[in-house]
Amino acid sequence: MKRIRVIVWGENVHERESELIRKVYPDGMHNCIAEGLSSDSELEVITATLQQADHGLAQNRLNETDVLIWWGHKAHAKVADEVVDRVQKRVLEGMGLVVLHSGHYSKIFKRLMGTTCSLIWREAGEKERIWICNPGHPIAQGLGAYFEIPHEEMYGEPFGIPEPDETIFLSWFQGGEAFRSGCSWKRGNGKIFYFRPGHESFPTYFQAEVRLVLRNAVKWVSPEGSRWADAIPNVKLSPEGIQQQ
Amino acid sequence: MKRIRVIVWGENVHERESELIRKVYPDGMHNCIAEGLSSDSELEVITATLQQADHGLAQNRLNETDVLIWWGHKAHAKVADEVVDRVQKRVLEGMGLVVLHSGHYSKIFKRLMGTTCSLIWREAGEKERIWICNPGHPIAQGLGAYFEIPHEEMYGEPFGIPEPDETIFLSWFQGGEAFRSGCSWKRGNGKIFYFRPGHESFPTYFQAEVRLVLRNAVKWVSPEGSRWADAIPNVKLSPEGIQQQ
Amino acid sequence: MKRIRVIVWGENVHERESELIRKVYPDGMHNCIAEGLSSDSELEVITATLQQADHGLAQNRLNETDVLIWWGHKAHAKVADEVVDRVQKRVLEGMGLVVLHSGHYSKIFKRLMGTTCSLIWREAGEKERIWICNPGHPIAQGLGAYFEIPHEEMYGEPFGIPEPDETIFLSWFQGGEAFRSGCSWKRGNGKIFYFRPGHESFPTYFQAEVRLVLRNAVKWVSPEGSRWADAIPNVKLSPEGIQQQ
Amino acid sequence: MKRIRVIVWGENVHERESELIRKVYPDGMHNCIAEGLSSDSELEVITATLQQADHGLAQNRLNETDVLIWWGHKAHAKVADEVVDRVQKRVLEGMGLVVLHSGHYSKIFKRLMGTTCSLIWREAGEKERIWICNPGHPIAQGLGAYFEIPHEEMYGEPFGIPEPDETIFLSWFQGGEAFRSGCSWKRGNGKIFYFRPGHESFPTYFQAEVRLVLRNAVKWVSPEGSRWADAIPNVKLSPEGIQQQ
Repeated sequence: MKRIRVIVWGENVHERESELIRKVYPDGMHNCIAEGLSSDSELEVITATLQQADHGLAQNRLNETDVLIWWGHKAHAKVADEVVDRVQKRVLEGMGLVVLHSGHYSKIFKRLMGTTCSLIWREAGEKERIWICNPGHPIAQGLGAYFEIPHEEMYGEPFGIPEPDETIFLSWFQGGEAFRSGCSWKRGNGKIFYFRPGHESFPTYFQAEVRLVLRNAVKWVSPEGSRWADAIPNVKLSPEGIQQQ
Repeated sequence: MKRIRVIVWGENVHERESELIRKVYPDGMHNCIAEGLSSDSELEVITATLQQADHGLAQNRLNETDVLIWWGHKAHAKVADEVVDRVQKRVLEGMGLVVLHSGHYSKIFKRLMGTTCSLIWREAGEKERIWICNPGHPIAQGLGAYFEIPHEEMYGEPFGIPEPDETIFLSWFQGGEAFRSGCSWKRGNGKIFYFRPGHESFPTYFQAEVRLVLRNAVKWVSPEGSRWADAIPNVKLSPEGIQQQ
Repeated sequence: MKRIRVIVWGENVHERESELIRKVYPDGMHNCIAEGLSSDSELEVITATLQQADHGLAQNRLNETDVLIWWGHKAHAKVADEVVDRVQKRVLEGMGLVVLHSGHYSKIFKRLMGTTCSLIWREAGEKERIWICNPGHPIAQGLGAYFEIPHEEMYGEPFGIPEPDETIFLSWFQGGEAFRSGCSWKRGNGKIFYFRPGHESFPTYFQAEVRLVLRNAVKWVSPEGSRWADAIPNVKLSPEGIQQQ
Repeated sequence: MKRIRVIVWGENVHERESELIRKVYPDGMHNCIAEGLSSDSELEVITATLQQADHGLAQNRLNETDVLIWWGHKAHAKVADEVVDRVQKRVLEGMGLVVLHSGHYSKIFKRLMGTTCSLIWREAGEKERIWICNPGHPIAQGLGAYFEIPHEEMYGEPFGIPEPDETIFLSWFQGGEAFRSGCSWKRGNGKIFYFRPGHESFPTYFQAEVRLVLRNAVKWVSPEGSRWADAIPNVKLSPEGIQQQ
């Protein structure tokens, strides 16, 4: 069986700069996220970080990647534009993309959405309850009616995104907000899934339900068909119809 | 100026059967909803109820109606199928439809959606906070970031609807649920808006923000163009192209 | 490996009433369509027809069906409403549905769409060229930029459907029309695919590209997750949150 | 009555470089497009071109603009990125955008779509027949079932766009292609309409039906509500709920 090749991309800044965050994620957030996927034998998982050459996302590596998971927060501006171009091109060709939490403000997500991707937020360590809107969706399989994260950063509406193709999760927050926490879009041949949870100061990516969502999501966004030709071919007229040059 | 002709349709059963509900809505829910619209000189508002001949929705009356507002709950099954057929046809021709609260389970809403339209619910008189997802939408104009209804019935996900064209409001409930409370769809030429609030035992339709949403919604769903021809015309081939028969 | 269980439903009227059609489809259209699927070992295919008890669609049979293909034309009105109810319920639970050609006017398609499903048409045996709008879609895999059907009935716009979730094929007709020939929607848990070609008087369902599209489509609409509960559960409030009753 | 303030932006290169094109559009394409709008007293129309300072799109001018029409082809790369940023921001705030013909490959359209926006094409001066898919849409009012442009460049599928919110027109081309020629999207508060016709070597923008579509489109994309705040406000928790800072 052909396994799905996944890169977990982590900004890897908080963990290096803050002892507090390092206590939550001693191996870095990207390694924790990767670990949550590695129990699944259908997935072949590696990691990449901002600090590596090409941010770990050289063209030949992306060419052999089926799904990219993106976590970034503090250093969105440090991601090189040519890497963003490259990732966008691969998504349009069919590579799946899972954008996590503060990645809503990453260059790649804003590039693919075309919108502000802004929202309201609060760090109060409050309870988040995530409801399943779309119980038949592959990403929601294995979950109950809802699951809870005991302490999380709050994100609230308005969330500056194009209307999602499918709304899969809604979050309820203890402090009084609601949010579209699991949304999907198709851009070119690529499927994109945004998943809200995962603030750096909470052990969210160790939680079983969150790991299940990520395993489901990786499978769901993995490529389904042939690559899109980003060509603009001139086609000839013939008596019999047309032929592509 | 041509005014928008609105019918507020009320099931008018709770108010007649229960003294408690009559205390909340002494003139009936439909008259309260109509009153909330009548301050707007662009609207020409009448009411209709289940108990009237044709449920107050005779063909000639519907033909002269731009927008129908629907509140029903206990007596969905008593609505005659031929009236539902008639209303559906008018929506597909371009008449706007605003479906309120328990109207999610009405024959006309299920007919136009094609789905179960089911949800979860609780009557605990809890607080509902309604967030605006889509601040540029005409239906949200004049509101702040959110508004609250002090006591309401809770509705929660999964809401068995086709993915909305636009998600305009999300509700947060005190008891722990979130819900897509303001959703729009286009079916044929007609615009449809579902708005969650309005349980019969609470004075929701007296609240200023709710009345503002309804006035905005009526204007937004009002017909924009020519009527859809529900015809299936056979067209002829000609050397010059085709002509419709 | 678990195979996908498919029923090909055929109205089976033209073939019985007309010698001309019988010459094109000597074994009936449903058997030709089924034959085109049977080369694929992932599919387990049976047929059902209007003339059978319950139109061959008894509840227990539908319960064990993953995908239903629907071809009907002359006898839409003869399909019993209780069978339509049953099929609709199964689609909302997750059964895939592929609606073919004149099935656009079937009770089940109109029920799930909520719209007129009308269109314009012409029987002139003209050429149809089907373009792929969405080359990365699983249903389009294995096709080139377009394929042609030498002689077909024409269908043209306006096609009275809700805006599709995805537009996969566009048809060009020799006589001057264009049409959205491959469209998908999700309703409840079920995926729906409408595919235009297949007039009874032409051997369309013998054509390799058409058979490939149908095999792809059956796989793509097959159920992906748990069944939708068409329930409307009352949920209790508790100090700890809520529990479903 | 408040008039809708429109800028028609023209690249204005073909007309200056080619005598042939100058014969078709002696006053430049942008002036011809503007002239087609000026018969409508609800519109207040000015033009802007690539060659002007800030390409005629200074911030204060854009701030006072309701709708921008964009025609570009040869010189997409010469449009300054800061002007594209500015236009994108205004669209997300609510300014309407109408993108014409070869503008499918403009920086601003690709920016808002997030996709390749590629297509197939042919210059053979063939006939284009434009069908109305969505007869109730405001942009289609006043048209018949279709209209024809006697000579046009061909554009064909696949068109590398996100699935449109609404598909309003489909084109049929004499040479054998079909294309989604009128599509709308909402991004932030702004409405976007793409309209296919308008190759520089044909007098398309003099044609009555094309001018009618543009007048309709300008009205339909004009702003409907308050401006989107591209802010990411931190919100406080309070016993009473939250307050925006």
